[in-house]
Amino acid sequence: MMQNAQVHQVVIIGGGFGGLYAAKALRRASVRVTLVDKRNFHLFQPLLYQVATGGVSPGDIAYPLRSVFARDAHFSVIMAEASDIDVSQRTVILRDGSLTYDTLIIATGASHQYFGHDEWAQTAPGLKTIEDALEIRRRIFLAFELAEREPDPEKRRALLTFVIIGGGPTGVELAGTLGELTHRTLKNHFRAIDPAEAHIFLLEGAERILLAFPSDLSAKAAAALTHVGVTVRPRTLVTDMRDNTVTMCSGEAIENLQARTILWTAGVKASVMGEVLAKHTGVTLDRAGRVPVEPNLTIPGHPEIFVIGDLAHFAHQDGKPLPGVAAVAIQQGRYVGELISQRLQKKDLTPFRYHDKGNLAIIGRNAGVADFGRWHVHGFLAWILWLFVHIYYLIGFDNKLLVLFQWAWNYITRKRGAQLITGKDA
Amino acid sequence: MMQNAQVHQVVIIGGGFGGLYAAKALRRASVRVTLVDKRNFHLFQPLLYQVATGGVSPGDIAYPLRSVFARDAHFSVIMAEASDIDVSQRTVILRDGSLTYDTLIIATGASHQYFGHDEWAQTAPGLKTIEDALEIRRRIFLAFELAEREPDPEKRRALLTFVIIGGGPTGVELAGTLGELTHRTLKNHFRAIDPAEAHIFLLEGAERILLAFPSDLSAKAAAALTHVGVTVRPRTLVTDMRDNTVTMCSGEAIENLQARTILWTAGVKASVMGEVLAKHTGVTLDRAGRVPVEPNLTIPGHPEIFVIGDLAHFAHQDGKPLPGVAAVAIQQGRYVGELISQRLQKKDLTPFRYHDKGNLAIIGRNAGVADFGRWHVHGFLAWILWLFVHIYYLIGFDNKLLVLFQWAWNYITRKRGAQLITGKDA
Repeated sequence: MMQNAQVHQVVIIGGGFGGLYAAKALRRASVRVTLVDKRNFHLFQPLLYQVATGGVSPGDIAYPLRSVFARDAHFSVIMAEASDIDVSQRTVILRDGSLTYDTLIIATGASHQYFGHDEWAQTAPGLKTIEDALEIRRRIFLAFELAEREPDPEKRRALLTFVIIGGGPTGVELAGTLGELTHRTLKNHFRAIDPAEAHIFLLEGAERILLAFPSDLSAKAAAALTHVGVTVRPRTLVTDMRDNTVTMCSGEAIENLQARTILWTAGVKASVMGEVLAKHTGVTLDRAGRVPVEPNLTIPGHPEIFVIGDLAHFAHQDGKPLPGVAAVAIQQGRYVGELISQRLQKKDLTPFRYHDKGNLAIIGRNAGVADFGRWHVHGFLAWILWLFVHIYYLIGFDNKLLVLFQWAWNYITRKRGAQLITGKDA
Repeated sequence: MMQNAQVHQVVIIGGGFGGLYAAKALRRASVRVTLVDKRNFHLFQPLLYQVATGGVSPGDIAYPLRSVFARDAHFSVIMAEASDIDVSQRTVILRDGSLTYDTLIIATGASHQYFGHDEWAQTAPGLKTIEDALEIRRRIFLAFELAEREPDPEKRRALLTFVIIGGGPTGVELAGTLGELTHRTLKNHFRAIDPAEAHIFLLEGAERILLAFPSDLSAKAAAALTHVGVTVRPRTLVTDMRDNTVTMCSGEAIENLQARTILWTAGVKASVMGEVLAKHTGVTLDRAGRVPVEPNLTIPGHPEIFVIGDLAHFAHQDGKPLPGVAAVAIQQGRYVGELISQRLQKKDLTPFRYHDKGNLAIIGRNAGVADFGRWHVHGFLAWILWLFVHIYYLIGFDNKLLVLFQWAWNYITRKRGAQLITGKDA
């Protein structure tokens, strides 16, 4: 890579919320920035469940990274996979090349994990990439098509049974949208089946869904899900899955559920870059594979290496690590960009502080829950708030108006223009 | 399948333009209609090249068939593949079931062919399905990403060489949009390469591109392509391709071209349903595998079987078969729907007559050629006409405003929001 030795080199690994906002914060700094990502686009992950349920198209929530920085001549974007870091030589090792840095920002995020049951991945896909979302979309809509043509009542029932494992925000959003889909959107679409007969189960191991929210909002969310036909099962653990059968246990009771579509939103594991850092710098990862960071988001002994977003374990505010949400990654990205700019002017910044603007989850078409500390909001108002927050953050996407228009259109017509069954097995 | 013996049963195989418009024309008829398609959506194929070049998303040009007929209680849509027809029993054999009919409409269209070189399919994909378009999109944008990181000038040149085989409308549209992309849209997106240095070749075996158009418009189209950097090579046949090398011959001269991206738009072959009909009814297919039809679009000896669209060979107007374009399929679909309605009232229709409203092809962002018989239009005016014609035909798509808005947006900003590299190898 062509790099100018005089100018401070910043390498950012990962073009998610953390990496993207760090890069944007460096636009006016006297640095050269190289942004490395496996993919050629930034993905607006909070809306991925909408792709999985046929609400919007992948192109509506993904944005080519090169477009963002086309006019920033001191930026370059590289589509490549980082495999290792030579900390002493300040070099990122790519699968096919290398990049030297003065400052390194690692923002490689997290993916799902199956708690030692990797064999479940085929049966119950998770939702982290566009390919995941398209695979889930394919399974959901194919299940209805097959059910329409299935004469055997037992098999038809299994085809119309959807199990979502994990009652966090993604599980709640998927279950709520599926409830919407079966009870409203797909009404009159079939002749032999009634989609409203579908069974949707949301399984959660803990005592309630949305554990990160106050318990009154969890209860509101559970009620809203029940209203769109979702069976919410807290205190339920999945112990096995095979041949379209989920085995689950609630206390002493063990139960088998026949279901053709099983979705996994239960476990999150930080990216392997955590292990790379552990090997070379001696940091000890937490149980989820995250890297404990200093108050200024560097790692101990390496003021030139920042870790932000879902990969970072930051616990300097109230002892609890910050959650793996977009807002944390965005604020950390901005902080690090600003800190690097200040350092070049021999200044420093106070430690990072997360400004919690609230926590939102959405249930179907016009219900949601929102936690603003003292304020607890639910129902339509929470849904409207969620809409405004997402529109605000879609700023920077040049197609934000389009996505908004598409939502409005879907909202009014209850149609889902992106209900395509695509892919190799379609 | 649940079918009422008293009511006239119409089975339509294929949900492309022909099948869709035949079904729509039967909305008020006293019949039961079953529409069978392998896919769960109608595809607006004339815009598929826009998906392949990152202009619009698949969801923008595909429409779930069930949505179209949700309110027509006497219609049912079945996602299934027809494998055979029992003409004497009036039964369509599906891979997993069967359907009896009183009247059958076969509108299964055409796919690409490699003239005995099926091994070229991997090297040079064609453009008929959404999966094809996404694969082509992946190859195009990946080529630029790899070129940006390729130090070897020869390999870089091969990565930036795009060969399109076949100078019909699809080849011209792909080449024109690629020219646009490399010379305008991707400007400033890269640091090590200049996309404008890309080499785009459009190879055509005949003496000129757009052979279906008058020769003055072919010349205008060739000039417009040259203007956006496309090298147009008429009288050029491809004799081999392997290892990123295309071997082509122009008269006596044999030439090898190093190219990583090769696209195929040269050959069309009618669907296998033609062979099924030939076997059971004795009709003789034409060289492209099409079924010769009677003046009323039935097949000889079978007034209850209609063949329409790209699968039909209709030559009753001026001796030449009608071209495989959307307008022909739409008019034939409407005619057949109307004819069936009339027959139920013991009436008949005059033979099918194609009303040729003109022929259009588009080159990049604001150029095109249009043939209206006496009128020959080219340049910006042809592009505007093309836009209006497509908007008109997108009526029936509930997202037509969205697609229009996205085009307008892309047109103004020259951005391509759907430039995603996705798929298993991404």
